[in-house]
Amino acid sequence: MICDRVWTNARLATMAAGSGTPYGAIADGVIAARDGRIVFAGAKGDAPAFDAVETIDCGGRWITPGLIDCHTHLVYGGDRAHEFELRLEGASYEEIARAGGGILSTVRATRAASEAELFASADRRLAALIAEGVTTVEIKSGYGLETETELKQLAVARRLGRERPVGVRTTFLGAHAVPPEYKGRASDYVELVTGPMLDTVAARGLADAVDVFCEGIAFSPEETARVFAAAKAKGLSIKIHAEQLSNLGGAALAAEHGALSADHLEYLDEAGVIAMAGAGTVAVILPGAFYFLRETQKPPIALLRQHGVPIALATDANPGSSPLTSPLLVLNMACTLFRLTPEEALAGLTRNAAQALGLGREIGTLEAGKRCDLAIWEIERPAELAYRIGFNPLHARIWNGQ
Amino acid sequence: MICDRVWTNARLATMAAGSGTPYGAIADGVIAARDGRIVFAGAKGDAPAFDAVETIDCGGRWITPGLIDCHTHLVYGGDRAHEFELRLEGASYEEIARAGGGILSTVRATRAASEAELFASADRRLAALIAEGVTTVEIKSGYGLETETELKQLAVARRLGRERPVGVRTTFLGAHAVPPEYKGRASDYVELVTGPMLDTVAARGLADAVDVFCEGIAFSPEETARVFAAAKAKGLSIKIHAEQLSNLGGAALAAEHGALSADHLEYLDEAGVIAMAGAGTVAVILPGAFYFLRETQKPPIALLRQHGVPIALATDANPGSSPLTSPLLVLNMACTLFRLTPEEALAGLTRNAAQALGLGREIGTLEAGKRCDLAIWEIERPAELAYRIGFNPLHARIWNGQ
Ligand SMILES: [Zn+2]
Ligand SMILES: [Zn+2]
Repeated sequence: MICDRVWTNARLATMAAGSGTPYGAIADGVIAARDGRIVFAGAKGDAPAFDAVETIDCGGRWITPGLIDCHTHLVYGGDRAHEFELRLEGASYEEIARAGGGILSTVRATRAASEAELFASADRRLAALIAEGVTTVEIKSGYGLETETELKQLAVARRLGRERPVGVRTTFLGAHAVPPEYKGRASDYVELVTGPMLDTVAARGLADAVDVFCEGIAFSPEETARVFAAAKAKGLSIKIHAEQLSNLGGAALAAEHGALSADHLEYLDEAGVIAMAGAGTVAVILPGAFYFLRETQKPPIALLRQHGVPIALATDANPGSSPLTSPLLVLNMACTLFRLTPEEALAGLTRNAAQALGLGREIGTLEAGKRCDLAIWEIERPAELAYRIGFNPLHARIWNGQ
Repeated sequence: MICDRVWTNARLATMAAGSGTPYGAIADGVIAARDGRIVFAGAKGDAPAFDAVETIDCGGRWITPGLIDCHTHLVYGGDRAHEFELRLEGASYEEIARAGGGILSTVRATRAASEAELFASADRRLAALIAEGVTTVEIKSGYGLETETELKQLAVARRLGRERPVGVRTTFLGAHAVPPEYKGRASDYVELVTGPMLDTVAARGLADAVDVFCEGIAFSPEETARVFAAAKAKGLSIKIHAEQLSNLGGAALAAEHGALSADHLEYLDEAGVIAMAGAGTVAVILPGAFYFLRETQKPPIALLRQHGVPIALATDANPGSSPLTSPLLVLNMACTLFRLTPEEALAGLTRNAAQALGLGREIGTLEAGKRCDLAIWEIERPAELAYRIGFNPLHARIWNGQ
């Protein structure tokens, strides 16, 4: 078999569905790539003879699929460190609002930032993800809340994908919050989002999906449905922030519309779980926000398992509720806080995260035909990735075969 | 002023006690070092003329004291990732014990490991600490529970201090658990610890302090007092693991004996706080273990503040209850879980951590006369260090002036 590169003497956690072994593990494994695709991944004993340009001896190290962070708000202006400090020093919410805190402070900073500034700050955060083995990342807009800035965020996300060795999927989240200009007129703002904003986003090909924050403090199920309808009319995939702070039935609504994923889900009930299972909608669990906001209501992991809903994990990297840029820490938090097993957690950052992005055939497992995105780890067993806290055992990372 | 190096154009968080400004901050600061010591740290306007071999323009970056991790169990054999996984897969404590889990599995692995193996594994963990700005680390024994292995752990810790650019303080923790050979005979084991073990440790100069785990599952206050008496007879400082799982009055006992610190302290009561305040014993808070063990009882931060007990923080890096090697994450956890302010948290990894090691005059602040241990950060304000999660903004680290 002619190929560009072969990795030998590796232990593989293929994460292939239905492999029957934990992690889809292969003890003495080989991976071969050609033109950026995996052409063989399996046991040495089953491998054909390779005619390769380069052969890499992995010294027995573990290889997993490259990690996929399927829910981030990586592009934004400013940060909220000062607000974090004020709050811990005892300031009230009102005092923080007066000092310019809250999501609108990020909106102001994002509107004021140049594209170059947004690129530079997001690039540092992206580098932190890449350093821990991320090969695909989703990036949302949603801190512009006006057409120009939403486009600017998405353009920066696309540019990160062009200029950095990582796959980027972009999501238009114009319906993240009601902007100050539309205070008390959410419905009018939804008109803007579903009309001129979405028209331009779609015409310029800036988004792969459309997302809505469905919550009492954001958009109602009715408003959410309007955004979904408009997105589907443009042929875009849909996603939802749902059931984070209360149960509005957003996940079931999203499932009815065939959403790729419903995200957060702390207050999700069994009806919502069943709707998601029926529609094949992935549950994206975000332990960083749960931790940072000191929530106590946990997502219904047992119900998700029981009904066979795929569970993905993500950093939710954002300045207000999850200033987190460590996918490895997400693995640990998912296990420690929500009692996922290490194998479920790793599936959540690989196979199921791919599905949450509509890329289940393209990435997320070590299987022939998929993009050759690998993370090679200096570990003795995959559970170490979830067990350690604040330790990065990445040995090498391969994106697109390189 | 003649010096080796000068750092100019920096914002300083001196963390000097009683400076009257948050973080002891100086807006346009200069630090000068000679022979590894700070000879000037202050405002540019107050600085003398320098005759320096090298001048470094910090470009407005922040400088804090190098971080001090004052409570770790960094040297051990094996890990407990498999146990972590078994537990999450639903195994009972009994099943895990049968599978060889628990602290005794680490004792077995540590006894079986060669000095070279222990050095190599601890060195990787130490590198993670150093990469986040740590310049001094305390390392405990306590996974040998027999003379030879306790000495081996301490010798490895000393060697890390000789061969790596970091200050190492070692602590003899023979009284960490009752070894299997002494099951049901804790008092006999204390004889060994306070007799032959401590004699050899002291004779070889392998320990700077002596620690005891005072808890129902470990050693009683009476046994703890015997260890303290023996340590003091050798002229060694003392420390205690106390009030982690219950309140046995260990912290007050340690304070009576003039302990440098009492550590964990979730169940500490006001009498214990007052005893610590009176003795100048530092409270070392370990949020990693609280998080990993999913504890709900929090240490009495408000009482510690009220009575003026200095609060230090540490990773408690260990395989069983805190497999954590990120001091920056400790800052965030202390704020998020225990509501410390970012300034209190940073004092906990600098000035107060120095005091917990009996090194309050030597390290922990940016003041003339102290060792020139610096962390230079790519941040806009010190609160960012505690606010971000899983992001390392360290720009450069200076240990001993270099
Ligand atoms: Zn989000
Ligand atoms: Zn400890």
